[in-house]
Amino acid sequence: MNPDDDAKRLVPALVEVMRRRRSVRAYSAEPIPDTVLDACFDLAILAPTSHNLECWQMIDVRDPHRLAALRRVCLDQPAAVSAPHLIVAVARPDLWRRGRAMMLDRIQQEKGDPTLSDATRRFMPLFEKKYRILIPFLFEDGPFHILAPMKRFLFWLRARLKPVMRGPFGRHEQALWAVKTAALACENLMIAVSAYGFDTCPMEGFDEPKLKRLLGLPRAAEIVMVIAAGRRGEDGVVPQFRFDRAHYVGRA
Amino acid sequence: MNPDDDAKRLVPALVEVMRRRRSVRAYSAEPIPDTVLDACFDLAILAPTSHNLECWQMIDVRDPHRLAALRRVCLDQPAAVSAPHLIVAVARPDLWRRGRAMMLDRIQQEKGDPTLSDATRRFMPLFEKKYRILIPFLFEDGPFHILAPMKRFLFWLRARLKPVMRGPFGRHEQALWAVKTAALACENLMIAVSAYGFDTCPMEGFDEPKLKRLLGLPRAAEIVMVIAAGRRGEDGVVPQFRFDRAHYVGRA
Repeated sequence: MNPDDDAKRLVPALVEVMRRRRSVRAYSAEPIPDTVLDACFDLAILAPTSHNLECWQMIDVRDPHRLAALRRVCLDQPAAVSAPHLIVAVARPDLWRRGRAMMLDRIQQEKGDPTLSDATRRFMPLFEKKYRILIPFLFEDGPFHILAPMKRFLFWLRARLKPVMRGPFGRHEQALWAVKTAALACENLMIAVSAYGFDTCPMEGFDEPKLKRLLGLPRAAEIVMVIAAGRRGEDGVVPQFRFDRAHYVGRA
Repeated sequence: MNPDDDAKRLVPALVEVMRRRRSVRAYSAEPIPDTVLDACFDLAILAPTSHNLECWQMIDVRDPHRLAALRRVCLDQPAAVSAPHLIVAVARPDLWRRGRAMMLDRIQQEKGDPTLSDATRRFMPLFEKKYRILIPFLFEDGPFHILAPMKRFLFWLRARLKPVMRGPFGRHEQALWAVKTAALACENLMIAVSAYGFDTCPMEGFDEPKLKRLLGLPRAAEIVMVIAAGRRGEDGVVPQFRFDRAHYVGRA
């Protein structure tokens, strides 16, 4: 099929979904069916994930006591108080080891697949090497990230000769790296919920240390956002402020 | 119209677009028309932006010499070498002052609009106060971010009594905050390009200091990703690895 024919069908739908997605601050009590939420999570999972290491998670808080506590931790803001669902999106740079093991397992399984294309067959050993050698070299920082400055120095030296990747090394860079991947999944989730006719609000107004304690998250976890979700209620939408494309996009 | 009827129309299209989006590593030479790219940028702008401060930008590198240099800075990886377009997504926490001024301007303009709903009219003064008082208080860190530890301490003290927001204070937290917002826009962009039948690859394999020098970006800028874009070429797609939903989503 001509890709332009597909575009004629897909673009208007996507524009409608993306325009429909607004940060909704007041919700009706109607919950989102579990089947719908699960389908939205499955679309979130399709977002690109850096090095395929899957260093993010979403926690759909259902326990009534925990949900009440979470609303307080979200400063009792209108979206947090009225939304039937609160989903906590978490960046987990510390899960890189799990992601690496999962990838190595999967590569072992798929290598033997007789239906692989030649290109994929050629690509597999390279891919395996990436997870065996490059990934631990990049992400293994030792206790308290003591290896990070050393790695930074080595890569700086190498960069005298030619362009090289510069990380992520150390706690801050790895947090930033994982937050980025998690945010891509959050955007997919919010768009998916919008396609189903429900609404979301990405919230950053929360007490992060208290939230991490509430959910028993480890020190390395970074809360990306709390996503309120449900059906928009009366006066749930405030005006949307966007500016000229030139404020965001430049040519160079 | 019943939202469920809309969902029946919108969900299959969105699923198709999101499944179609793959990280493509080899491109044909066919460029994406400017009208298509601009339409995709306009959808990127619809992503939620934290505090409406618009602290991100995308640079569509067109100058042939700069593009050649950018391919080298992206380590000559296949996607960077073959894609006709390379778009550099940048988080710009330092642009919060511009965003604040833009918002205050816009609020002044809209306040007088006689078509505003009552709810919006009630909301406007609160909103204006947010940009006059709260935003500078959160984001103004003084030279070299010297106020950040002080603000952190004040908010920590306040948190003894009740949940409070914890930032973003200081260079690292503000970088992380802006990267998050920029990533949401990147995901919209990549999905939009996919709807138009073109392809993208989000790349993190680049030499960040060299890239910032190449584009003359300030110290505070943080490169989020370089997005290769074009039409997928032969063998452009490698297998997609995703895992069970339980690895990503939990209930608590």
